[in-house]
Amino acid sequence: MNPLEAVMRELRAFVAERDWAQFHDPKNLAMAISSEAGELLAEYRWVSNDEADDWSHDPGNGSRVAAEAADVGIALVLYCDRIGVDLVEAMRDKIDVNRANYPVEASRGRHSRPDKR
Amino acid sequence: MNPLEAVMRELRAFVAERDWAQFHDPKNLAMAISSEAGELLAEYRWVSNDEADDWSHDPGNGSRVAAEAADVGIALVLYCDRIGVDLVEAMRDKIDVNRANYPVEASRGRHSRPDKR
Amino acid sequence: MNPLEAVMRELRAFVAERDWAQFHDPKNLAMAISSEAGELLAEYRWVSNDEADDWSHDPGNGSRVAAEAADVGIALVLYCDRIGVDLVEAMRDKIDVNRANYPVEASRGRHSRPDKR
Amino acid sequence: MNPLEAVMRELRAFVAERDWAQFHDPKNLAMAISSEAGELLAEYRWVSNDEADDWSHDPGNGSRVAAEAADVGIALVLYCDRIGVDLVEAMRDKIDVNRANYPVEASRGRHSRPDKR
Repeated sequence: MNPLEAVMRELRAFVAERDWAQFHDPKNLAMAISSEAGELLAEYRWVSNDEADDWSHDPGNGSRVAAEAADVGIALVLYCDRIGVDLVEAMRDKIDVNRANYPVEASRGRHSRPDKR
Repeated sequence: MNPLEAVMRELRAFVAERDWAQFHDPKNLAMAISSEAGELLAEYRWVSNDEADDWSHDPGNGSRVAAEAADVGIALVLYCDRIGVDLVEAMRDKIDVNRANYPVEASRGRHSRPDKR
Repeated sequence: MNPLEAVMRELRAFVAERDWAQFHDPKNLAMAISSEAGELLAEYRWVSNDEADDWSHDPGNGSRVAAEAADVGIALVLYCDRIGVDLVEAMRDKIDVNRANYPVEASRGRHSRPDKR
Repeated sequence: MNPLEAVMRELRAFVAERDWAQFHDPKNLAMAISSEAGELLAEYRWVSNDEADDWSHDPGNGSRVAAEAADVGIALVLYCDRIGVDLVEAMRDKIDVNRANYPVEASRGRHSRPDKR
């Protein structure tokens, strides 16, 4: 079993033991993803772009943001499991879409979509 | 190589080919996670809790939210890679913390933290 | 002076006294709006649609969400002031756009845009 | 009547004419605030702190972000009206709290709370 699948099984057991499936409909889990993402975002509010890498590598900050990123990941895995979507497969599909929307030559060093410039 | 790691390598190549590392500092990627989470959230704004499962299983809605969930996952993997955090390991650590904060007996059927009630 | 303008002046003084304009560029304030919105969102994660009105009128919950809503409002006013936009005027303009996009007859009891159905 | 109150009355009429109160429970409106904030955030993802002011004053960008800020404001006013909170009063109360938490001397040029450093 791959590591992400192992985590998904741990999460299923965690939820089942606490009888929490009743709270975990897709709407509530989408809210959980977004509010956890907001907590990660809050950490960087007053950190400038120039400082962001160094700031993230400070051990205190680093362990805090790792825990926030993990919360986003946990909510995302619970969400995908609830709606029956394989997250890694969906990511692979989306990367293919992104390859088509952002051709290498036209996108080098530019983040806006070439067909929307 | 496990599937999530394979996706991470694809993403690294995608970013390198387009010379996008310059945009991907941790602050900007935290913003990307949050704005992608906001797009997923938008889908459920007017869907009620009672309808959310059925709504998500409709093929049209399902493929749209799978793509939004994938966008969150992609931004999250890019973020963790940038700050040098193993996402799956961080999730496992956080699940351990959650087990301590939400003991099975005291949390059955209740989502609030027992020590904060 | 109208009440919202009075609050804006209070906020300007608050920021100036603390020399915080340096942190308040539009990017950081957009992050502040979103992370404060995420805190408000977190309050409703496990509250169902059916319970949401009653839950919000409970005095304890009500004073907490009022403070979260205020945080969003404060960040929003600071943001608009920084970029030189009159928030109330922008809202009035957007309501006009919404009137065109959601004609009364075609939108009665339906939240999706008629021209995108 | 002050301008924000006038906008609130316009919004009430807008919602009533379309029979949308059924969708506008506090949970859904909190989601609307957050997803609109996410759209504003998305605009600044790849804009650096150093460029953010100039970028926002470009007419094309400026009118787009003004419309996004207006969407946040509209959702926020609808939310406060639904739960019976006076937004401007709540902001004034919160500014008082912030004055206590961020004393002028200890907060000059520093964004972190003095009592949590």
